[in-house]
Amino acid sequence: MSRRRGPRLITLTSDIGSAYAAQMKAGLARRRPPGTVGDLAHDLRPHAGGEAAFLLRSMAVGFPAGTVHVAVVDPGVGGHRAPIAIECADGSSLVGPDNGVLIPLAEALGRPKAFRILPERLEPRSRVGTPFDGRALFAPTAARLAEWVAARRLGSPMRPHRYAVPVAHRSRSGARGEVVHEDRFGNLVTNIPTAWVPADVRTLVLRMGSAGARTLPFGTRYEEWGRGRACALGSSFGLVELAVAEGNAARRFRVSVGCAIDVHWPPRT
Amino acid sequence: MSRRRGPRLITLTSDIGSAYAAQMKAGLARRRPPGTVGDLAHDLRPHAGGEAAFLLRSMAVGFPAGTVHVAVVDPGVGGHRAPIAIECADGSSLVGPDNGVLIPLAEALGRPKAFRILPERLEPRSRVGTPFDGRALFAPTAARLAEWVAARRLGSPMRPHRYAVPVAHRSRSGARGEVVHEDRFGNLVTNIPTAWVPADVRTLVLRMGSAGARTLPFGTRYEEWGRGRACALGSSFGLVELAVAEGNAARRFRVSVGCAIDVHWPPRT
Amino acid sequence: MSRRRGPRLITLTSDIGSAYAAQMKAGLARRRPPGTVGDLAHDLRPHAGGEAAFLLRSMAVGFPAGTVHVAVVDPGVGGHRAPIAIECADGSSLVGPDNGVLIPLAEALGRPKAFRILPERLEPRSRVGTPFDGRALFAPTAARLAEWVAARRLGSPMRPHRYAVPVAHRSRSGARGEVVHEDRFGNLVTNIPTAWVPADVRTLVLRMGSAGARTLPFGTRYEEWGRGRACALGSSFGLVELAVAEGNAARRFRVSVGCAIDVHWPPRT
Repeated sequence: MSRRRGPRLITLTSDIGSAYAAQMKAGLARRRPPGTVGDLAHDLRPHAGGEAAFLLRSMAVGFPAGTVHVAVVDPGVGGHRAPIAIECADGSSLVGPDNGVLIPLAEALGRPKAFRILPERLEPRSRVGTPFDGRALFAPTAARLAEWVAARRLGSPMRPHRYAVPVAHRSRSGARGEVVHEDRFGNLVTNIPTAWVPADVRTLVLRMGSAGARTLPFGTRYEEWGRGRACALGSSFGLVELAVAEGNAARRFRVSVGCAIDVHWPPRT
Repeated sequence: MSRRRGPRLITLTSDIGSAYAAQMKAGLARRRPPGTVGDLAHDLRPHAGGEAAFLLRSMAVGFPAGTVHVAVVDPGVGGHRAPIAIECADGSSLVGPDNGVLIPLAEALGRPKAFRILPERLEPRSRVGTPFDGRALFAPTAARLAEWVAARRLGSPMRPHRYAVPVAHRSRSGARGEVVHEDRFGNLVTNIPTAWVPADVRTLVLRMGSAGARTLPFGTRYEEWGRGRACALGSSFGLVELAVAEGNAARRFRVSVGCAIDVHWPPRT
Repeated sequence: MSRRRGPRLITLTSDIGSAYAAQMKAGLARRRPPGTVGDLAHDLRPHAGGEAAFLLRSMAVGFPAGTVHVAVVDPGVGGHRAPIAIECADGSSLVGPDNGVLIPLAEALGRPKAFRILPERLEPRSRVGTPFDGRALFAPTAARLAEWVAARRLGSPMRPHRYAVPVAHRSRSGARGEVVHEDRFGNLVTNIPTAWVPADVRTLVLRMGSAGARTLPFGTRYEEWGRGRACALGSSFGLVELAVAEGNAARRFRVSVGCAIDVHWPPRT
């Protein structure tokens, strides 16, 4: 069900920095009404496709039905990725390279149908002829979709590459997962759902990388403990997060995105 | 007197980074017209409540009457802060945690009336149940206020926590204050009003931290002196600022926000 | 030919950071419709006027005819620069200090006519009286221009300072230029047009600074080579760019903006 009231919004997400992003905005400003194109983030960690997939889903999932989300994050070496557009159950559309970054969001929005964009179907044709697909392909595709052109008019059905979303595993008294995001405070967000931790648990035992076990207090706000105190939190993502009150957990634990995390809590008796 | 013409604007300020801010924008995009929600800054120094209070006032005070300003900056450990909304004399509203960050702006906008937000009065209720108040509480509150719902409908009157704004003190031939902001060039903005410095003064004697006295030229543009030259300026904030032409004063002087500054000028004769 | 349909857009570019930029946006929000003022970038390298001139042209040239572009980048010590407005052939207007940063964009937009802004012609007069021209002069000027006030009404004709755009030189089997931009990945964009490199060239020999000659593969996508491999690319700017796949070319080559680059390719036989 698509939202036909008012113009469709377009959001832009990338790891390319504000200057390249501005080139996408220039082309969109030629076609879309003022105020309908917005930045989510252009300072994502370079080449970190997995973290980008996680963040794109978190950032974009709450936008109105019918929004067009463009995400240009290069997950690294591996050959040219086809440009794709994905239409979802709520009328939202996703645009970007076929590298898996769009997939978690597409699945959250429901019933994704993917199309490989055929540049020759974009009008006017790009006169630029450079490798910056953001400006030459993705922005024009988003503009067409926002004008309610169906994705099937812009390309052919295809099966997108999937990003292997790291899945956490649950045991009777714990879970094994990994760090999926480090935020600007150095907080470490894992992929372990907070809901897995029993409601009465107040401490967690963690193992990260090669370090020994640590026992950390567990709660919902690090303000409960003193400055500099390490703790585990139910994060705003609904996932277990490691933090240091007014400090930097990533530096304290020497842990980064992708690092395995084992969590244990006392078995219920 | 509120501005009833056109939709109310909402501004967003935080230390949480673009990715978390995007989650606030998602919810607002569902309720507010395109182009009416704008970012001021999401890269404020983490946990620096005092600097955030200073900057929020500087950034937001010039917006149109009736604007809704949301500021989510966590000034650090100290227990859960209640969500509040403040209505001001010009019809502007401020939303954020009750940690003092909103107070200097509220006082500048005049006759602030504060209300503790009661989450059960927000419709629709947040289904998220996570500790990110920005998305679950502050954005929905801002949306309601922008729809001209009165703050007293969303909560109960209360007396907000005050942020102890550091006040500079004046003497016959000088002033004592402190650094309230370090900008991205490393310029150090103090809380000493430029207007206190007599118009004919061309040099200032400064003491910062434990360092000895320095004599610096004083003017309105650092271009008056050569590259690498330290100087004192009447800053764009109307406050005395320390700068190094094409250099970094914070590094040169090894001074940061909160550091005490003594300024002397020759007594008038 | 100016675009009279709909309100004129205003873009903002600077090296001053989001907090100062917000002060420009505050004043503009008082005069312009929601959604018509947009950020391009406020994180440009401080004091790097040449790089800013290059980026401003790249970012802004694709915006609709009639857009007003404000660029406040201080290229360093050298005396006070007059505020100027430049009107171009397509109806676009440029606003900023007379330091050359606007010139490459003005020439790309065609037939520039420059005017020195006379502050006393701006209404209402700034009550601020501080040296931040962005808020006191450039934003009010942009607002007037966006209201279709002619630049000649705001000032007097003048001849702007030119920024000496570094020009690359071509030889029969190579070119000599310099690095004009380092992006957030550490990629080094030169001023050597990709079009100068013959279509069948697959390797380039480069000399940078005092280092010896390096032979690098040349293509359009660094994905063609392995992770950590240095290469030369036809960049999205239409210029030869040096990159390291998933790495940082600026650090690898110890090269920065302004460094001379010699490129050679095999002469055609």
